[in-house]
Amino acid sequence: MLTHSLLPHGLMTRPHKDGLSRRAGWAGGEPIANVLMARTLAQPELVSLAAGFVDPETLPVEPTRRAFEAIWSDPARARAALQYGTTIGHLPLREAVLDRMLQADEKTESELNVSVEQVVVTAGSNQLLYLVSDTLLDPGDIVICGAPSYFVYQGTLTNLGVRTVGVEIDNHGLIPEAIEKTLARLERDGELGRVKAIYATTYYDNPSGVSVPAGRRAAMIELAKRWSRENKIYLIEDAAYRELRYYGDDTASLRSFDPEGETVIHAGTFSKSFSPGIRVGWGVLPPRLVKPVLAMKGNIDFGSPHMNQTLMATVLEMGLFDPHVERLRDSYRTKLDATLGAADELLAPIDGVQWVRPTGGLYVWLRLPETIDTGLSGSLFGRAVDEGVLYVPGEYCYPETPRPSTNMIRLSFGIQSCESIYRGIEALARAIRGVLS
Amino acid sequence: MLTHSLLPHGLMTRPHKDGLSRRAGWAGGEPIANVLMARTLAQPELVSLAAGFVDPETLPVEPTRRAFEAIWSDPARARAALQYGTTIGHLPLREAVLDRMLQADEKTESELNVSVEQVVVTAGSNQLLYLVSDTLLDPGDIVICGAPSYFVYQGTLTNLGVRTVGVEIDNHGLIPEAIEKTLARLERDGELGRVKAIYATTYYDNPSGVSVPAGRRAAMIELAKRWSRENKIYLIEDAAYRELRYYGDDTASLRSFDPEGETVIHAGTFSKSFSPGIRVGWGVLPPRLVKPVLAMKGNIDFGSPHMNQTLMATVLEMGLFDPHVERLRDSYRTKLDATLGAADELLAPIDGVQWVRPTGGLYVWLRLPETIDTGLSGSLFGRAVDEGVLYVPGEYCYPETPRPSTNMIRLSFGIQSCESIYRGIEALARAIRGVLS
Repeated sequence: MLTHSLLPHGLMTRPHKDGLSRRAGWAGGEPIANVLMARTLAQPELVSLAAGFVDPETLPVEPTRRAFEAIWSDPARARAALQYGTTIGHLPLREAVLDRMLQADEKTESELNVSVEQVVVTAGSNQLLYLVSDTLLDPGDIVICGAPSYFVYQGTLTNLGVRTVGVEIDNHGLIPEAIEKTLARLERDGELGRVKAIYATTYYDNPSGVSVPAGRRAAMIELAKRWSRENKIYLIEDAAYRELRYYGDDTASLRSFDPEGETVIHAGTFSKSFSPGIRVGWGVLPPRLVKPVLAMKGNIDFGSPHMNQTLMATVLEMGLFDPHVERLRDSYRTKLDATLGAADELLAPIDGVQWVRPTGGLYVWLRLPETIDTGLSGSLFGRAVDEGVLYVPGEYCYPETPRPSTNMIRLSFGIQSCESIYRGIEALARAIRGVLS
Repeated sequence: MLTHSLLPHGLMTRPHKDGLSRRAGWAGGEPIANVLMARTLAQPELVSLAAGFVDPETLPVEPTRRAFEAIWSDPARARAALQYGTTIGHLPLREAVLDRMLQADEKTESELNVSVEQVVVTAGSNQLLYLVSDTLLDPGDIVICGAPSYFVYQGTLTNLGVRTVGVEIDNHGLIPEAIEKTLARLERDGELGRVKAIYATTYYDNPSGVSVPAGRRAAMIELAKRWSRENKIYLIEDAAYRELRYYGDDTASLRSFDPEGETVIHAGTFSKSFSPGIRVGWGVLPPRLVKPVLAMKGNIDFGSPHMNQTLMATVLEMGLFDPHVERLRDSYRTKLDATLGAADELLAPIDGVQWVRPTGGLYVWLRLPETIDTGLSGSLFGRAVDEGVLYVPGEYCYPETPRPSTNMIRLSFGIQSCESIYRGIEALARAIRGVLS
């Protein structure tokens, strides 16, 4: 049964607040990013290991200039870039994106039952997540995700009046047995029919840093299909960090384990691997979702800016993308090493401080002794700021249920220099020792 | 009382279709644009007077190149353009947009109780309309608009489960007395509390071509305030075509008649005046709507692409915008003249064919004899295509209620040469004569 405590605040009963829509009411409070931003501005010498921004030093100034000049060297092409595009997106870009996915997965179109007609260009992968969610989910519906999970998408779901139910993760991401257990419990509660999707960041999760190995990907597909009894349960694969691989081999996408292509919704983006300011992402969708997602997208923005799509297509076509990603990997690899090195030196000696060693992405997820509350009003946060470091309290990265762990920290190493990372972790170690003593 | 015939299809009772959300169910059928596009592709020699595209020949290839080079000449600025921006948008752009509005309206910030904190950058004005609608309107709520009115926004509202109620327009746009009459009827029906907004394209309406004169703007503000009894009724001012003025003086914005700034939501865009492929628009919002609109925007796309905003800010800062608009006006003025000239010569002699002479915008709205059904399945449409011209059937431009006129046509003159416009209208005249004989 639907209990009121599980419903988004005010879903059934609350009158319109200030004449706004119910949906506006769900949008809720100030985003954590703003709260943290305010702290940063107030104390500029602070080392922020909070923001998930990409490193400004590695942004592709030169590749973008070259692609722009190539387009602008032909006035007809430039004019086309400045004109409206289509809602689904620029065909050469969609073709390139699909080719790259198939190449990385070592599959053909027919092996994955996929075509360019299922590739939709969006404003980053976030917009794809939004569009798919608005297309699939009604208020009161349920999305299963990791505990922890990507907090921006949690906010999106809350804004749609959707409930998020977390399942346990380990060093290899979402645990299939934990998903099963949760589905069985929801079935007992008569709520299986409200479960519409399982969300997973399959590569270098934000915030946990972990990736889902191949075997577990196959198991996730199998269980999503098997539990699609009262209605279809989709798997939403967020592959935003796939290109940010610093060690080890690439893993084939979750989508590649779904040969019929009816179960996985795959989301990708150039925001992390190239530029968030160009803001081009994409989705590879099950055929039946293409039309309804495009109807939503048409309402929201008429299609992503054609200039930006033309630019990204040209970057790929000119072979400017892969060398850029190589440079990016070199830079982030050094920063990841610096983060883990500093943690080994400064945090490992503190009893009860633990972390997973990610091989890609932008985050290191720290577990502190259970006595420490890492939240904004806990004992550590203010002390850490005083010592000179800002972090994201782990509790912000948890779904609605079950109760979040209160002793976790997300560290981002993307925007800081190796020296600042060291200073930041040094400050964090001092703060933790201070709280413990 | 809410009657079922007024509700969007399936609002209360329909089960989820194909496991999609209720909202996806409202998104409805194929957009008219796609239907018409298919006709165009099938017969390439057709003169399309249907598409509302801007003229590719006048797209700002050179201004954009200059602005891009100016930004890219400074690597730090280029890097900033390639990084994330904020959800509300790039401050220099918001300042420039507000300055331009105030200058055009001959007002100061304090006279209009406005500040840059109320200026929000969006993906064209369409996204602003979407965001505001999603923030204000619940399914079953009502927006009052002209009959006819901008059809893309009609679709957006239908997608949100919102009802659109049309009021009569004349050569000066929405008739205040007709709005009053409609509000009074809704009040008698116990539905005044569902009316949340009145929507008007105040400059060179799409499709009717008419503009709202100053006196009527003041009257609209007065009546929106007076009828805000059960809840606030906002006026949504769509100023997308303000810059496309070919004859006569500018009129101060609807917003400028609302000195408290609590009633008018003002939407503007560079899509028509500069480039739809850069896709930058904006809203000037009542203070209380800023936060909720940004919460929605944050979920949908995290803010518009920073590169595009930096580009537009630079275009304005370098003084490249106004000369471009002058060139654009010269080009469109010639095309408007060609359209009206051809209509005078070829359509005026046909009994019962009438039109308003617009002084700006991209559209001429034709009234044909009432015996002619201009719809896709009517007698004229196929004949017009056979003769070599494509138009938008007027019935697509009407709100849900009352019943649309079936003898109207929207002609767009933006993308065709003067010669093609003449040929297209010649073909239309032949088709009309054929149907009448």
